[in-house]
Amino acid sequence: MTDGPHRLELYHFGAVANSLKPLLCLAEKGLEFTSHRLEGAKFEQYSSAFLAINPLGQVPVLRHEGHVIRESTVINEYLDEVFPVPALRPTTAYDRAQMRIWTKFVDEYFCPALTILGAHNARHYARQIPRSELHAVLERIPLKEVRDKWATIAGDSYSDTELEEARRKLGVCAQRLEQALATRTWLLGGRYSLADVSVFSMAITLPNVLPERVNAAATPQLMRWHAAMSERPAVRKTLAEHPRRGAPSAPSAPDA
Amino acid sequence: MTDGPHRLELYHFGAVANSLKPLLCLAEKGLEFTSHRLEGAKFEQYSSAFLAINPLGQVPVLRHEGHVIRESTVINEYLDEVFPVPALRPTTAYDRAQMRIWTKFVDEYFCPALTILGAHNARHYARQIPRSELHAVLERIPLKEVRDKWATIAGDSYSDTELEEARRKLGVCAQRLEQALATRTWLLGGRYSLADVSVFSMAITLPNVLPERVNAAATPQLMRWHAAMSERPAVRKTLAEHPRRGAPSAPSAPDA
Repeated sequence: MTDGPHRLELYHFGAVANSLKPLLCLAEKGLEFTSHRLEGAKFEQYSSAFLAINPLGQVPVLRHEGHVIRESTVINEYLDEVFPVPALRPTTAYDRAQMRIWTKFVDEYFCPALTILGAHNARHYARQIPRSELHAVLERIPLKEVRDKWATIAGDSYSDTELEEARRKLGVCAQRLEQALATRTWLLGGRYSLADVSVFSMAITLPNVLPERVNAAATPQLMRWHAAMSERPAVRKTLAEHPRRGAPSAPSAPDA
Repeated sequence: MTDGPHRLELYHFGAVANSLKPLLCLAEKGLEFTSHRLEGAKFEQYSSAFLAINPLGQVPVLRHEGHVIRESTVINEYLDEVFPVPALRPTTAYDRAQMRIWTKFVDEYFCPALTILGAHNARHYARQIPRSELHAVLERIPLKEVRDKWATIAGDSYSDTELEEARRKLGVCAQRLEQALATRTWLLGGRYSLADVSVFSMAITLPNVLPERVNAAATPQLMRWHAAMSERPAVRKTLAEHPRRGAPSAPSAPDA
């Protein structure tokens, strides 16, 4: 572990969703970092200690050289700029544009849809929190959208229509991946990139979340890529060192 | 005008919202380009000619060296990489990260909120379209989210709750800008960047859209920056050459 201001520190929820993105990027580059794992189920992201680091209460966050950087997609471009070997961004401006279209699609479409199902799955956990405690937690959440999400799942949760719409969107994601991977080893062609890192951070759970639409018969190319991703040493290392936990931490996914 | 494959071509809706971003970037860099202005009110973005260029029917789109690049935020980073003088991205990795946090905020929060009010303002236009014609248009729209938006404003439009929520979010945007600009000339400090380009492309209409919360008394720093932006030669040139039109084109904003 490197000490001092040049040390890298990552605050994260473990190898899932937005937290998985920088964990994978750091592992692919072989970078050592101080790992600060937060427990979403204990609302540690809304502790005064963490809010002093990121006042928005969003995870993951990177600390480096006295700076605090939030937003997983932004963190990964930063890491690739500061630690360019091995490069995880393509060499041409056009390919980098295609990479950013994928990471944008993840942030604006794929992740929000997955978040609704993840939050819904955590509703039993949310409902067993005593009302007075829940109220105190909600008061500490800086972003209204996140407060609303917790209030929703602690109440009636999402409607069947909203859940079906989230599943429809994940089906769109699966089809886009299947189509892109029909002619490519990785999302941008022969070269692994931050597009794969970003999409896999969500798609890792897709075969379990949407088994009727994401499987060897329906999406063979997606499954082939999913297997190739899972076999990468950096992915195996990351999943082994920062394993996902059970349902209680699921609602943490939308926070970043 | 430069001919041949090296020529730049931009498909856009004029100097507003997402279309304004690349128009401003091109103007700041003094780049000549072939302008293809589409009429959102005539649904030209869903013509077979345009869908052959961008199958998603989203505007703006850049053509350059045989490539088609969509997504206004991605287009601007591409332009700054390929035509680096004058640079519109900061020189340090940390500042570039801050720039991307702003452009992400615009795409994920500011623009969607503005889009709801823009679409609502276009409801009278949408409602005068004959039902059979509207049905034919809806069938040509590739993205379900955009189809739903048109169906919404041609019907009962957004609820008072939804409209108030959009205005609340725009108030959050105004406060973030006011706070950031209290200690800075431009959003990232002393240096003008794509963060200013992106935010101004939405904020240009903010004093009109939200006059009770965005004005010289309530948000003096925002208004000072808004005036400085409006006086930039590239901004004046762009607004003069690609003027906004009236209400009918307003619903075009969400398409990019």
